[in-house]
Amino acid sequence: MSPAKTKDSFGDQQIDMAHGAGGEASRRLVEGLFEPAFSNPSLATLADAAVLEVSAARLAITTDSFVVKPLRFPGGSIGELAVNGTLNDLAVSGAKPIALTASFVLEAGLDVAVLRQEVDAMAGAARRANVPIVAGDTKVVENGKADGMYISTTGLGIVDSRIELAPQRVQAGDRVILSGPIGAHGMTIMIARAELELQADIQSDTRLLSPLVEALIDRVGPSLKWMRDATRGGVATVLNELARDSGMVVEVVEESIPVEDAVRGACELLGLDPLHVANEGQFIAIVSGDRADEAIEALHQAPGGRQARVVGAICEGRVARVVAKASYGGTRIVDMLIGDPLPRIC
Amino acid sequence: MSPAKTKDSFGDQQIDMAHGAGGEASRRLVEGLFEPAFSNPSLATLADAAVLEVSAARLAITTDSFVVKPLRFPGGSIGELAVNGTLNDLAVSGAKPIALTASFVLEAGLDVAVLRQEVDAMAGAARRANVPIVAGDTKVVENGKADGMYISTTGLGIVDSRIELAPQRVQAGDRVILSGPIGAHGMTIMIARAELELQADIQSDTRLLSPLVEALIDRVGPSLKWMRDATRGGVATVLNELARDSGMVVEVVEESIPVEDAVRGACELLGLDPLHVANEGQFIAIVSGDRADEAIEALHQAPGGRQARVVGAICEGRVARVVAKASYGGTRIVDMLIGDPLPRIC
Repeated sequence: MSPAKTKDSFGDQQIDMAHGAGGEASRRLVEGLFEPAFSNPSLATLADAAVLEVSAARLAITTDSFVVKPLRFPGGSIGELAVNGTLNDLAVSGAKPIALTASFVLEAGLDVAVLRQEVDAMAGAARRANVPIVAGDTKVVENGKADGMYISTTGLGIVDSRIELAPQRVQAGDRVILSGPIGAHGMTIMIARAELELQADIQSDTRLLSPLVEALIDRVGPSLKWMRDATRGGVATVLNELARDSGMVVEVVEESIPVEDAVRGACELLGLDPLHVANEGQFIAIVSGDRADEAIEALHQAPGGRQARVVGAICEGRVARVVAKASYGGTRIVDMLIGDPLPRIC
Repeated sequence: MSPAKTKDSFGDQQIDMAHGAGGEASRRLVEGLFEPAFSNPSLATLADAAVLEVSAARLAITTDSFVVKPLRFPGGSIGELAVNGTLNDLAVSGAKPIALTASFVLEAGLDVAVLRQEVDAMAGAARRANVPIVAGDTKVVENGKADGMYISTTGLGIVDSRIELAPQRVQAGDRVILSGPIGAHGMTIMIARAELELQADIQSDTRLLSPLVEALIDRVGPSLKWMRDATRGGVATVLNELARDSGMVVEVVEESIPVEDAVRGACELLGLDPLHVANEGQFIAIVSGDRADEAIEALHQAPGGRQARVVGAICEGRVARVVAKASYGGTRIVDMLIGDPLPRIC
């Protein structure tokens, strides 16, 4: 049982406008619900800003708003996503997180039990990652405006001095590593919304990527050249960003990209390319060719990294782009996501 | 003319779901509209996180979501508020800002001209404060949600080592300083919504507080003991937080608190106490009694500080609370804001 629950003293049943007014009701919400859940020394001051001591460092900062619909889905929920998603952006930037902030836009009429569930999910995810949530804010908007809640998180981290990640460092012969099977998050959300008449045993891959990223850094250090988590827009969009920013051709072997059967089936039904479907627990890493085997070995030994594999390589080419090769010999150009077949997946 | 405008190349007329999907349309929005407006070296990388170099320091971090309705109002707009509001939280924490992040929740169907106006307002406010917007995110929700846009900003700053702000340092004899006339922001929003049948010449006090705060720190240094900007819940709420956190009685002289005539009139019509009405450009500072004259002199000489004055003092008392004295001799207890007479003012 979390220490959060034992101290929660917020007795209101529903959120109303007064909880966002900054007065007495706001204070009860913050002190009764948020503080006990997010308990840490920096947050406890309730001042306008949290204060953190750092020594000389390169800081990384990242921010995201989360509007996923529905709020809860198989394998995760908006609260867990809001913590892991932002921490993953730090992880793939090669930074160790030191603090998170969380800002809520709540809808009047929101059941406090629903809010409490997400606050606990955030507190749990932050605790597992060992990162304090140090500052926050709450606004309340009218019923009908915010689908229960939107959450914005900002992550602050310290860049690992052992590595330098930059698309300019990517060169021909480097390998493209994928951390695991793709498409699970996007298809889970689609099915959870019942927009798809389908019962499939799929759950979101929402998870913290730090253990995998750290295993990689520990093993190959500066031979790790670039990372990005494949969230909105999927692996295809991330690889296109890499091609553009590095000026290189990214060549992937279609069959080497792991996709669970249920996800592949759902994608085929909808005419979606799994490469365009969002993930919340997978990333792409570019590692120099001579260290790729070690990188894979390190990932396989890390928790949750068993399915990591090399899925392609970087090549020279006249036009920077992403090409997928099939085993029967065909190739196709993989584009960025155009339009939005799966809105509001994070 | 701002450099932002000359490079803006976003040709779409309306926001749609695809702009939030993370693919090609998102990229056009970020590169065509946000990047030119917020142009700075950290942002230009478009990576998952921005990187900042810092030497050993105490960092302050603060976050806020902005849901003000309407988006534009006399004296300001949501974009300017989102920058100044967060920078003001850093300022009253005694921190010099080094970076901002901005995250948008946009409504599908939003006129891009409206978005552009707010992005420009943010860029202008950030430029005037000399703080880069280094990271961001955009999500799009369906038409009818989010009232055009919600903006979440996070500010990162370095705490000024010359001062130590803490409610525990506040003691009997300290003076309560108010930076200027109160209630303008809340009443402006109320009138702009036409919820009040009133034509009054009031405009929001939205502004950056750093010049005033810096003047105060430069002059009285460690004799400055506590600060807070009087936003949601107004001066009354801030003073109640001070009373509670310091365990002292905060005594203010009712007539010494400046309120513009038009604001006072509007408050009287609505039966509101100006002490409960939100400000976006005023703060309370607690300064030791022997340095209060100097503090006021410093504020008077700073831009926008002409109306700063001592409005009360800290006293011992059996019960920590806020008491307002009237010149005719009466006193009343000033409570925190209960309920929300003025929702969504920031």
